[in-house]
Amino acid sequence: MPEDKLPKRSEDFSAWYNEIVQRAELAEHSPVRGCMVIRPNGYGIWELMQQALDRMFKETGHQNAYFPLFIPLSFIAKEAKHVEGFAPELAIVTKGGGKDLEEPLVVRPTSETIIYSMYAKWVQSYRDLPILMNQWANVVRWEMRTRLFLRTMEFLWQEGHTAHETEQEAEEETLTMLGVYRTFMEEYLAMPVVTGVKSDSERFAGAVRTYAVEALMQDNKALQMGTSHNLGQNFAKVFELQFQSRAGNLEHAWNTSWGVSTRMVGGLIMTHSDDDGLVTPPKLAPIQLVIVPIFKTDAEKLTVMEAAEEVFLHLKAAGIRVKLDDRDSLSPGAKFYDWELKGVPLRMEIGPKDVQNNSVVIVPRILLDHEEAPKPGRKQKLFISRLDLGDRIKHLLDELQTQLMRNAHARREANSIRGVTDYTEMKALIERDAGFIYAGWCGMTECEAKVKEETKATIRVIPFPEFQSATKPERCIVCGVSAKHEVVWAKAY
Amino acid sequence: MPEDKLPKRSEDFSAWYNEIVQRAELAEHSPVRGCMVIRPNGYGIWELMQQALDRMFKETGHQNAYFPLFIPLSFIAKEAKHVEGFAPELAIVTKGGGKDLEEPLVVRPTSETIIYSMYAKWVQSYRDLPILMNQWANVVRWEMRTRLFLRTMEFLWQEGHTAHETEQEAEEETLTMLGVYRTFMEEYLAMPVVTGVKSDSERFAGAVRTYAVEALMQDNKALQMGTSHNLGQNFAKVFELQFQSRAGNLEHAWNTSWGVSTRMVGGLIMTHSDDDGLVTPPKLAPIQLVIVPIFKTDAEKLTVMEAAEEVFLHLKAAGIRVKLDDRDSLSPGAKFYDWELKGVPLRMEIGPKDVQNNSVVIVPRILLDHEEAPKPGRKQKLFISRLDLGDRIKHLLDELQTQLMRNAHARREANSIRGVTDYTEMKALIERDAGFIYAGWCGMTECEAKVKEETKATIRVIPFPEFQSATKPERCIVCGVSAKHEVVWAKAY
Repeated sequence: MPEDKLPKRSEDFSAWYNEIVQRAELAEHSPVRGCMVIRPNGYGIWELMQQALDRMFKETGHQNAYFPLFIPLSFIAKEAKHVEGFAPELAIVTKGGGKDLEEPLVVRPTSETIIYSMYAKWVQSYRDLPILMNQWANVVRWEMRTRLFLRTMEFLWQEGHTAHETEQEAEEETLTMLGVYRTFMEEYLAMPVVTGVKSDSERFAGAVRTYAVEALMQDNKALQMGTSHNLGQNFAKVFELQFQSRAGNLEHAWNTSWGVSTRMVGGLIMTHSDDDGLVTPPKLAPIQLVIVPIFKTDAEKLTVMEAAEEVFLHLKAAGIRVKLDDRDSLSPGAKFYDWELKGVPLRMEIGPKDVQNNSVVIVPRILLDHEEAPKPGRKQKLFISRLDLGDRIKHLLDELQTQLMRNAHARREANSIRGVTDYTEMKALIERDAGFIYAGWCGMTECEAKVKEETKATIRVIPFPEFQSATKPERCIVCGVSAKHEVVWAKAY
Repeated sequence: MPEDKLPKRSEDFSAWYNEIVQRAELAEHSPVRGCMVIRPNGYGIWELMQQALDRMFKETGHQNAYFPLFIPLSFIAKEAKHVEGFAPELAIVTKGGGKDLEEPLVVRPTSETIIYSMYAKWVQSYRDLPILMNQWANVVRWEMRTRLFLRTMEFLWQEGHTAHETEQEAEEETLTMLGVYRTFMEEYLAMPVVTGVKSDSERFAGAVRTYAVEALMQDNKALQMGTSHNLGQNFAKVFELQFQSRAGNLEHAWNTSWGVSTRMVGGLIMTHSDDDGLVTPPKLAPIQLVIVPIFKTDAEKLTVMEAAEEVFLHLKAAGIRVKLDDRDSLSPGAKFYDWELKGVPLRMEIGPKDVQNNSVVIVPRILLDHEEAPKPGRKQKLFISRLDLGDRIKHLLDELQTQLMRNAHARREANSIRGVTDYTEMKALIERDAGFIYAGWCGMTECEAKVKEETKATIRVIPFPEFQSATKPERCIVCGVSAKHEVVWAKAY
């Protein structure tokens, strides 16, 4: 266990993030530049994310499949925008089985090309549509500057790929999956998000329209948490994905694709964690509650461990992800420090007095507003009877989940600046990392590019109506021309 | 739906296999030579395999993690036997981000090297041991002759990698995981297997000892279903995976690795399927029961569909993976054909008369010995009351699972030839694909090589005691010298 303290968020956010990832044993750099090793504590979070999303995908009618890691270089080149977007990021296999390959193989950066080439074989008639598939896979994009979870050369993700009879159905699917992402992020990640459409310059290479889910991190930089693309007929035309329509004509199918990745783990860390370490929403915590037994004498150890084991089995049977920390090599204080750093939502302390009282002490990882406040400078402690313990703990986990969402939402709102109309003011806001800045935009790429060049901020999304300000901005903040949209500006990861 | 009949197993086993994989929409060749596309019907089986194994791995104390796809070429080269075994099969990335790489990257064929190089960073003392990790991943081995599921360039698998304080602990782990595989194959795949140790020439490149799980397919060829390796200190020495021992010395850790892959789906097909198509053990069937409504008039349709939907919801709530086939475009007969081909364990027919009788008709995919036998040339039909339907169906699924195991076991036993002592006889047996041939072996590589050269058969395993013949063979079947082991010979996939 490292003795030195974590860097503070307020002093060096980036160092704080890196230290949490390393010390909580979530991930680590590998000997291969840009590739990360996801350690069990980090992978456990990803597994819970996968399980929840996979269930939501299946409930919306999707099936999993698996397509090859390798894609012929010629496939990527077929869609003009697609190759333009991805060519600089490709990893290329040129040798196999001891020989130079005739055609180099690309390690998939995304799978539109190979997947739609297969769909073209499977689809003859409108009866074969829709195709609603998803794959869980690794992808590779050659990145020069990488950060654990946020931007790595190889990352794990899911990519959904669908084919539809009509444009409208494809658009509905694109929005449905964006909605699934939003629900997942709010309910599981306890993360408030803004959804909307991307500007043309931020669109996925090959899409007609890209929708995104954007979140605000504690350093007031934006993180794109997921995207959902309406691909129109772009790929269908290139890969001859055609079908006999109800009217008897040969038509091109309409495609969508959508994905989220291990980047979400980075978003989770930067949304909830504090200067004591990781904070994990209970629904995504591999360990939801840790039991730390406290005793001095051998006689005390005997009674305390007996009670601790009883409680452990009881909570496990109640479906709570619980761990009993019975390490002899660490003091209770060292264990507290360790589990706080690792972000376990609830800590349970059981000492001889607790055994006598048939109760336990619960210390939540974050302050719960609805429970009794602690004395200044002290941790919140809840004294709980062992009767109905399972239900009580479940309730506390729910409360903690809700509290995290409430905190994150309040922070996001406090750092959303609306009604900015002066460009000089906006530049100053961006300069001091003020958060999401809502302002008018004329819709011209030139104005967008100017802001990006001068401030490094980009249009995160043109937000959906429910995220728009009550009063619509009248003019573009850059050029002063009549505003076409209200947009959200921020620097982003 | 293809009109032409499946090839018969007895006439062309290989064509029969390929046609089942394609027509049941399990998998397909991709545009990249040697890589396959796993379609939802095939992937659904793999997902159920993953879920069961993952649970078993976690119950035996393992955690999941994820290590990079790319491995520096120099890492692979560090362990002499390892590079010798894998060098001819490597896919190599030489370009990334538009530039030639200084050091080529290998697309992992297996991850011992990268994983133990990381363990070396994490382990200082015996207190950090054991490390018990597993990863679900894709791997690539450049294969010239590929077959869907059985041998593909890219395949999906899990690879467990552990590090231990003592040689004995590593050996115990190796055997524990072999046992987990055996249990999984018997209980889920309904597949009888022989476990034992591999001869030196069949050992994993870099292992001290390789244990394997071998099964006999319907064409009497063996399929290696999984392996578990005791790696000794080979990789620990090369990657300096050392720890401070309890006695205070610096010692090398002891490693094990073990894996099973999508190849198991091929094994499932070749073990249970018949001339009508795929047969899936209920525990691994994405759809366990399909409901086919039968009606003529619109009035009948109304009552039948209402009953079918009720039954569907009832069975779903009971935890059965059920599908209601309400396609209007197909006749009931065409549906029967389709679901038989796709291997759904139970078919339920509901017609107007069944609605009246408050009953359903069940047609099991294979003959159930414990149920009433059908008339010659007819399917087995079970008439079942709708009272207690959930329990009855669950019982039938269990019965079918057990029946498959019984059938496969009887077939394996009928094709296990024991006590062969004459080499000419053995050659004749191998020539006519007689199955598993048990015979004595002196332990010399020369004798093993001679058989392989003359017959193409290999030693599948030196079987564990519970699989050995009552009478031990006295002499090596090849050279006549005193036998060291009884071994199992067969041609293999």
